[in-house]
Amino acid sequence: MSPMDRVYFDHAATTPVREEVLEAMQPYFSEKYGNASSLHSFGQEAREALETSRATVAKLIGANPEEVIFTGSGTESNNTILKGTAFHKKKGHIITSAIEHPCVLNVCKWLETRGFDVTYLPVNNEGIVSPGDFANAFRNDTIIASVMTANNEIGSIQPIEELQKIASEKGVPFHTDAVQGFGKIPLARTDALTVSAHKLYGPKGVGVLCTKGIDFDPLLHGGGHETGRRSGTENVAGAVGFARAAELAFAEMGKEAKRQTALRDQLIDGLLAIDRTHLNGPREKRLPNNVNVWFEFIEGEALVLMLDGEGIAASTGSACSQKELKASHALLALGLEAHQAHGSLRMTIGRPTTEKEVDYALEKIPPVVQRLRKMSPFKKEYAGFGGEK
Amino acid sequence: MSPMDRVYFDHAATTPVREEVLEAMQPYFSEKYGNASSLHSFGQEAREALETSRATVAKLIGANPEEVIFTGSGTESNNTILKGTAFHKKKGHIITSAIEHPCVLNVCKWLETRGFDVTYLPVNNEGIVSPGDFANAFRNDTIIASVMTANNEIGSIQPIEELQKIASEKGVPFHTDAVQGFGKIPLARTDALTVSAHKLYGPKGVGVLCTKGIDFDPLLHGGGHETGRRSGTENVAGAVGFARAAELAFAEMGKEAKRQTALRDQLIDGLLAIDRTHLNGPREKRLPNNVNVWFEFIEGEALVLMLDGEGIAASTGSACSQKELKASHALLALGLEAHQAHGSLRMTIGRPTTEKEVDYALEKIPPVVQRLRKMSPFKKEYAGFGGEK
Repeated sequence: MSPMDRVYFDHAATTPVREEVLEAMQPYFSEKYGNASSLHSFGQEAREALETSRATVAKLIGANPEEVIFTGSGTESNNTILKGTAFHKKKGHIITSAIEHPCVLNVCKWLETRGFDVTYLPVNNEGIVSPGDFANAFRNDTIIASVMTANNEIGSIQPIEELQKIASEKGVPFHTDAVQGFGKIPLARTDALTVSAHKLYGPKGVGVLCTKGIDFDPLLHGGGHETGRRSGTENVAGAVGFARAAELAFAEMGKEAKRQTALRDQLIDGLLAIDRTHLNGPREKRLPNNVNVWFEFIEGEALVLMLDGEGIAASTGSACSQKELKASHALLALGLEAHQAHGSLRMTIGRPTTEKEVDYALEKIPPVVQRLRKMSPFKKEYAGFGGEK
Repeated sequence: MSPMDRVYFDHAATTPVREEVLEAMQPYFSEKYGNASSLHSFGQEAREALETSRATVAKLIGANPEEVIFTGSGTESNNTILKGTAFHKKKGHIITSAIEHPCVLNVCKWLETRGFDVTYLPVNNEGIVSPGDFANAFRNDTIIASVMTANNEIGSIQPIEELQKIASEKGVPFHTDAVQGFGKIPLARTDALTVSAHKLYGPKGVGVLCTKGIDFDPLLHGGGHETGRRSGTENVAGAVGFARAAELAFAEMGKEAKRQTALRDQLIDGLLAIDRTHLNGPREKRLPNNVNVWFEFIEGEALVLMLDGEGIAASTGSACSQKELKASHALLALGLEAHQAHGSLRMTIGRPTTEKEVDYALEKIPPVVQRLRKMSPFKKEYAGFGGEK
């Protein structure tokens, strides 16, 4: 196979804006540019586009339009619902999982410094929360529970419907960060839901928080936009892009999930054929686009950089934690040792990914892994295990 | 004059994205779409664009790049610096003015419910804060002072350099919401500064917070983006658009300020020629693009809607408060009565505004005002004052 230009296996980090999405957004930059809160006709055409987008997103979620708030990101949605509920209640206990995205975990850690209690539920070795543990974690003063729909690093899918049922029985609002699952797998209806556009071929800088029946203080106070729940001039082009991206993703979900699952499994099988390589996360309850493996005697960051040299874009874990040298909290929560977590590689498939690209990756990765192992500080140990002499 | 299609006199609410700005943003949607926090080449090209944009904005402000944080809006920037400082200090006193934007005032009101003290400085009848009052407001426990550069409703320009000097002498960080002034008038260097792209022919959904030497807790916790000060996947296209818009605005500032001031004065003089019409805000220390007048015996909202029927987009005050029927807090702070504030009209000029458009507005507005006055519930009173019989 001749070398390909560049292949992108990092769709969990971000995705390109689809042509249809950009096209839908285009008029709202320079033509229909009004402020959606203005009374005049420029404002009204912006308002109309915003409300149509809201209705589209609501319908896909199975919610009412008034439950949908547009935000600036998934991070903002998660910060809003967790801090907002906490500020509204003033004190209390929060339940979450040990493998949440940092924009849930770090919010919880910060809230702990403000007098709130947090339970971080463990996960099993496939990265899945036990409903029993979840049920047992509730206290009289629990104010909210938040467990992600699917993990951004290992793709494990949580039993959200069951968790929502338990939370409802306990009379506590349940929130799920569905950033990685939205548009890829069917979603359970929850009291609150976080989504982001840029993981779904929409633009960066737009998120959604969908809530019903939860009282929370706004994170962004101001002009009272989004019925007082999120102030700031409405990003009309962003909302339009979000709606179009979501609409397309939902329409293609079944077909794409099937196609991507096949590519995912081809990639997993091909990588596991490399000796001393292990799958992180579940084989079954896994996002259709997620591959995460650990290679013994490998330093993941070096691997990512060498693969980049071959034109293959992959990651060690989530993009936002790439700059830290800390081992992934999600992989550690699965029971991996730090050196195992450090030897891990995440490859995430997307709409544009082709079988040819998967073949290319599977041709290029094994020799790179072997080359790195030769240079490994663990080389001797590796030799002792029957590796390179 | 033949009727024009539609003329837009609401540039303080929002502006169209300039062609050059949209062009600069375009590649970052679907081509250079990487996550700026990813290690691979897709990530690196996004990172490069982000950092170049940051450096551009910093240079225009006269700051170092590391002082500039990209946010999702001016509202977010204001919420971040005020709540962030408050949360970091845990208690204390805040100084602001009575005519701030709601995204400062409502943050302060909310912080009051959390145990913080706030002084809302009065303004004179031109909407300007007295440096003497400002200096007298400081207490031993003052943690931050925030006064806007220029008012969004009446265009009054504050003595920011003087206020910063006083705050520095008191050893208290000074912040200014410069959303309306940035790119229109030269700015004083302050400890912290808020700016928004969409008021400046950039995209909606992008703001900047520029700070130095202020410790604050992040408003958005998460993956640690923006050196831990603002988490959330970086909106690269937005940052690129912001930088390009700012660059162009600064390059044209002198020329545009002169041109818009002439149009502004033509509009003010033309409107004041209508009997029983008064200027709100200062004649001199006023943004080059702001016109705000009150018409006796007029209900502003009705005027805005009737002008919209003539193809003229104007507003009663800020876009975000249009849906409330409350009188403008800024106009009340000038000393106007509620009925005077309700009879006010804001018209804000922009780059695309032409003299022909001003002529058109001045041709159309007087008869609309007279028509409304005929229907006014104050009609009799008006007649008594020598108005319509």
